[in-house]
Amino acid sequence: MRKIEHIGIAVKNLEESNILFEKLFGNPPYKQEEVVSEGVKTSFFMNGPNKIELLEATTPESPIAKFLDKKGEGIHHIAFDVKDILTEVERLKNEGFIVLNEIPKKGADNKLVVFLHPKSTNGVLIELCQEII
Amino acid sequence: MRKIEHIGIAVKNLEESNILFEKLFGNPPYKQEEVVSEGVKTSFFMNGPNKIELLEATTPESPIAKFLDKKGEGIHHIAFDVKDILTEVERLKNEGFIVLNEIPKKGADNKLVVFLHPKSTNGVLIELCQEII
Repeated sequence: MRKIEHIGIAVKNLEESNILFEKLFGNPPYKQEEVVSEGVKTSFFMNGPNKIELLEATTPESPIAKFLDKKGEGIHHIAFDVKDILTEVERLKNEGFIVLNEIPKKGADNKLVVFLHPKSTNGVLIELCQEII
Repeated sequence: MRKIEHIGIAVKNLEESNILFEKLFGNPPYKQEEVVSEGVKTSFFMNGPNKIELLEATTPESPIAKFLDKKGEGIHHIAFDVKDILTEVERLKNEGFIVLNEIPKKGADNKLVVFLHPKSTNGVLIELCQEII
């Protein structure tokens, strides 16, 4: 785990939140992207070495729709940048962490991603992500 | 806002969570510190350019005790590193953000800190922090 790659924030309305976070950072999102398989529309803000990802649900079955129903808007996950996701998943499994998807899946922003279950990480949904070269 | 300075995570038992996050990062906390004014014991893990702060409540009136009662363990706040906290607070007030403490207070890890109200930031408790030189 080399750094916080991004923080994912669940929002109800991406357009409105884009305006809000542009005010916060003083810069507009550098990218907007839909991930159909996850039922989300996303936008990304750069903040030095880190990013902020805003996530709006596009379907009622989306994990983000369920999160908003249960908890309301707010921080959804932390993503850590890893060099070799398969090695890191193996290491974390051996340490007792619960891996939600052992086979990395394609996430937003050109990444392979694996999630750890919050039950095994003090209630924090952790994403490991490796840049696809 | 130059980078994510740290992510604050509310935990029930700091000693147990220190062991868990040491497994996650492969390194022990580099610092532990009590902030009596906030009713918290903290520990800090380094992760590249960022830090993770674990927070345990030391009094029932602590904001962390209230957070744990209401939401359980999990991500409590995001802290952004700023160069000049007073200028940044002025800028954000003018942009319509609600500032919880206009006068910066002394936080953990040798920082001056100001919090923004989650009502004005999509449910995210945001801390601005400036290193005390």
